[in-house]
Amino acid sequence: MEEKIEYKNKKHKKYKKIKIDKNKELSKKSGKRHNPKNHHKKRREMKNNNKLKLIPIGGMKEIGKNMFVIEYRDEIAIIDCGITFPDESLLGIDSVIPDFTYLKENKHKIRGMVLTHGHEDHIGAIPYFLKEVGNIDIYGTRLTIGLLQNKLKEHKLSDEKLHVVVPGDVVKLGKMEFEFIQTTHSIPQSCAIGIKTPQGNILHTGDFKIDLTPIDGGHIDLQRFAQYAAEGVEIMISDSTNANRPGFTMSEMTAGASFDNLFKRYEGKRIVVATFASNVHRVQQIINSCEKYNRKVILSGRSMVNVVGTAKELNLLHVEDDTIIDINNIGNYDPGEICFITTGSQGEPFSALTRIAYGNHKRIQVTPEDVVILSANPIPGNELAVTDVINHLMEKGVEVVHNDLHDIHVSGHARQEELKMLLSLVKPKYLVPFHGEPIQMNGHRKVAMAVGVPDENIFMIENGDVLELDHEGVKIAGKVQAGAVLVDGLGVGDVGNVVLRDRKWLSEDGLIIVVLTLSKETGQVLAGPDIVSRGFVYVKESGDLMVDAKNIVEETLRNSDNNSRDWNSLKNNIKDDLKDFILSEMKRRPMILPIIQEV
Amino acid sequence: MEEKIEYKNKKHKKYKKIKIDKNKELSKKSGKRHNPKNHHKKRREMKNNNKLKLIPIGGMKEIGKNMFVIEYRDEIAIIDCGITFPDESLLGIDSVIPDFTYLKENKHKIRGMVLTHGHEDHIGAIPYFLKEVGNIDIYGTRLTIGLLQNKLKEHKLSDEKLHVVVPGDVVKLGKMEFEFIQTTHSIPQSCAIGIKTPQGNILHTGDFKIDLTPIDGGHIDLQRFAQYAAEGVEIMISDSTNANRPGFTMSEMTAGASFDNLFKRYEGKRIVVATFASNVHRVQQIINSCEKYNRKVILSGRSMVNVVGTAKELNLLHVEDDTIIDINNIGNYDPGEICFITTGSQGEPFSALTRIAYGNHKRIQVTPEDVVILSANPIPGNELAVTDVINHLMEKGVEVVHNDLHDIHVSGHARQEELKMLLSLVKPKYLVPFHGEPIQMNGHRKVAMAVGVPDENIFMIENGDVLELDHEGVKIAGKVQAGAVLVDGLGVGDVGNVVLRDRKWLSEDGLIIVVLTLSKETGQVLAGPDIVSRGFVYVKESGDLMVDAKNIVEETLRNSDNNSRDWNSLKNNIKDDLKDFILSEMKRRPMILPIIQEV
Repeated sequence: MEEKIEYKNKKHKKYKKIKIDKNKELSKKSGKRHNPKNHHKKRREMKNNNKLKLIPIGGMKEIGKNMFVIEYRDEIAIIDCGITFPDESLLGIDSVIPDFTYLKENKHKIRGMVLTHGHEDHIGAIPYFLKEVGNIDIYGTRLTIGLLQNKLKEHKLSDEKLHVVVPGDVVKLGKMEFEFIQTTHSIPQSCAIGIKTPQGNILHTGDFKIDLTPIDGGHIDLQRFAQYAAEGVEIMISDSTNANRPGFTMSEMTAGASFDNLFKRYEGKRIVVATFASNVHRVQQIINSCEKYNRKVILSGRSMVNVVGTAKELNLLHVEDDTIIDINNIGNYDPGEICFITTGSQGEPFSALTRIAYGNHKRIQVTPEDVVILSANPIPGNELAVTDVINHLMEKGVEVVHNDLHDIHVSGHARQEELKMLLSLVKPKYLVPFHGEPIQMNGHRKVAMAVGVPDENIFMIENGDVLELDHEGVKIAGKVQAGAVLVDGLGVGDVGNVVLRDRKWLSEDGLIIVVLTLSKETGQVLAGPDIVSRGFVYVKESGDLMVDAKNIVEETLRNSDNNSRDWNSLKNNIKDDLKDFILSEMKRRPMILPIIQEV
Repeated sequence: MEEKIEYKNKKHKKYKKIKIDKNKELSKKSGKRHNPKNHHKKRREMKNNNKLKLIPIGGMKEIGKNMFVIEYRDEIAIIDCGITFPDESLLGIDSVIPDFTYLKENKHKIRGMVLTHGHEDHIGAIPYFLKEVGNIDIYGTRLTIGLLQNKLKEHKLSDEKLHVVVPGDVVKLGKMEFEFIQTTHSIPQSCAIGIKTPQGNILHTGDFKIDLTPIDGGHIDLQRFAQYAAEGVEIMISDSTNANRPGFTMSEMTAGASFDNLFKRYEGKRIVVATFASNVHRVQQIINSCEKYNRKVILSGRSMVNVVGTAKELNLLHVEDDTIIDINNIGNYDPGEICFITTGSQGEPFSALTRIAYGNHKRIQVTPEDVVILSANPIPGNELAVTDVINHLMEKGVEVVHNDLHDIHVSGHARQEELKMLLSLVKPKYLVPFHGEPIQMNGHRKVAMAVGVPDENIFMIENGDVLELDHEGVKIAGKVQAGAVLVDGLGVGDVGNVVLRDRKWLSEDGLIIVVLTLSKETGQVLAGPDIVSRGFVYVKESGDLMVDAKNIVEETLRNSDNNSRDWNSLKNNIKDDLKDFILSEMKRRPMILPIIQEV
């Protein structure tokens, strides 16, 4: 083990040379390991003292907006702060962030935030957090911090309190210590967090898989997990994403072999590969195949350009000087000498690949001479969008290679055998499955029971639940505010259920507006009723219907007593009569909006 | 073979006893086979004569609204007439039907319609067809016609021109003969259609799989396919649904074994099984397990009750007299003696299972003592809805068994090895892949090429393409009108792109209405501007914004020359100024609707 640590520290030194570290400073950092004996002694002393609180603010019963609070006495530390991408029910919403109320109320207790890795569902909400709660110290590995810096720059926020760590580093936040433990995932420099607290050890896995042949040689630190087991782990908070999938997730390396085969097979044809920008290892393997088969690389899509730029700067991506070319120089090469690496593997509407598929891309047109490789699986909810992109490409005669046909994608999350492996290695007393909907958390529960974790030691909690740990064990003790805050444009939290309900209603049957001007004195109709509709019927071809609708409203006006000036009941009458008419004529229920002006 | 046909004819007689046949009469029907020699002679004579036209009205480059036209001289026959369920981009739309324009224009040529099977995407649009084009003779097997009768009754249409056939029957429509050839699929009594025309034989597979151990003993008539091969098949139109899936689809029988295991495992617990109502064989197997393990069956969901009723009446479902009970008698049984069979396996919002999962079902509440078995896979696009139902059930502590965990569902469509098998058996000269999006049609093309069909003999056509067959071969010769007609409530075709675009816009950012009353004479503002919004922001919490918006409009009014009475340019100015304000304040683009009334 000593040799291994020695090696790690050497690597650390190399890391520290790079530029991005210069404005970083750890509040406290230490490469040395804790003496297990001392730790046990300390734990015994403290056990009868105060309770440790574990509070998920997000990430429970959902995949997204991960945020976990660890609280001891008057000290709070936070793990991750991510967004969720909205599902189709959240009409018009751009992203969903955690509800920071509890942290705002307890701002004075916050000692800092540690980040497991650089994916959006773990770091994406940090700009909103900093704006709402205030600036705090944030710790993460180089790539994580690099990506976060880009993000803060976009939001015009300071990056002064960002600190770069390397796996093995320990950050002391109040009385708790947070150790970064290297794991493997679909973005480099992912970490689990080992937490030493007065109430014992906690382990938060972050997102992980057990990739035993990782691309960059950054192995998952199984030894360190085993050491934690030796010291005793009270609670493990662990990734449930693939808990319903049997077996072992394939190594990232298998995708590389597939690329080599495909590049060989499609020699002479132009190749477009779509993948996640943040999957730097995947991009590395595509670039490796390009260099092997003498292709130049053109990057396409804003996030692809950004992430590759950051990864190159951080020396995480190894590219020969002349491999990446500008699209303006494409004319100097044959199609068989070109490979585009692009975003849009999820069929996102404005992504580069979608625009290519629909023929809307300004610079890239595809023909039957092109091959498109989709190196990703659709995230649940994106299936139709991805199929649509494939269909459009095929309509253009393009050869499309997707994961149903070749092994060009592997997941970044542990399957059942890996989860069992980690549970068996760490032997936590309690398990808190996270990073999953109930279907995945439940799968994780069954996996854990299969390796001997008693059902009553598995806590299927929800966001806001306060899990208390003391010498007597773990229990759910109360609840704090936690939920979803919707971001729409620049508005944070101003779109709620009422607005969404209206958007849904409008989206299904449109609306009819009835406008009237009435005399303030006599109640007489001075103008109107005018009927305007949107999203209801094609008015030019439904003239009769609109005339009938107007007649209905006029009938309502005749039957109403306008002398009373009770415009609200007049509005309700118009609404009811028109609703009945439309329903019986068309079996539709548009929103009906009477507007009355008084003169 | 003779024995087999003999046996079939015996079965036919038995079929014909049943009630539903009594008001049916075939215009011409014959159980006897054609003499291949005569046929060849006839074909030679006619070959230099007129062309045969094959025109898909729907079902190409899509999964849904299947409708195929075969035309020879002044005679048209139609195969199937189905709907598509709308995808999420078709906001508020209930269903999508084919465009019948070509058939309306050529109504006088129509000799009749033959149906391959009773699924919605093959028979669902018939009521609309009959209303728009007129009543015609329709031929199908007992269950197909039975389901169609239910449908016509709902639409208050006559079923006088429906005719029941049995596999082996030949229907002569003008100079063309249509033979019903038994296949296997996820609904009983599915058929391929063998078509003898003056230009040679055509084969339309309908939807099929090759199930060699079918539940009801109704085997796919491989011998008849082979006989067609011996006579020569010019064009085969064949099901592409599973063309990207390797291997062979499992037999329906495998699902039955899984049910037995599950019923044994969950003895004592109440069981809810959700599946497709039309999958009578699946329902049969569930009922078999119920009877074996002494459970009473309660049917739930309108279509489940309907289809089971029809199938029982037609003697297609074998149930002991006291197996199915009324929900009112549930109190007489222990939970372990009950099994619900319900609709909702696709997470449809108002289905029985969804209401059960959300706790909105009036009669059925589930608890941790219940087991829900989802005997279906999500159709693409329904993944999130199905997962949502599972999550809600799991939240209630219900044990949910889905197809990821047990083999409780098999597809009704042929995979690659079955497609190869049929192609090798029939040896068609030309292949027209249908029942697939480009991704599946393309998969089918590759499968066909693998068994020796030349690429140039595979016609990847689209809806409306006219495929012409004569003695020189096949070519695409022209195009007829074909597309999607949207049904929303009682409206057919009155919702088009403009309305959908508005619904989408409204769904994303809502709308702002600006109402003004102006003096006709002076152009002076008499009332307003009043600002009303829906689906934009929560107005009660955005008072400042609405005041600012009003100020913007007032500013616009001050800057406009209202003496000109050019209300259109005033409206445009209001729209532009308000749009710029909202965009810079909120980065949102609500629909802005200025309405001006003159007094």
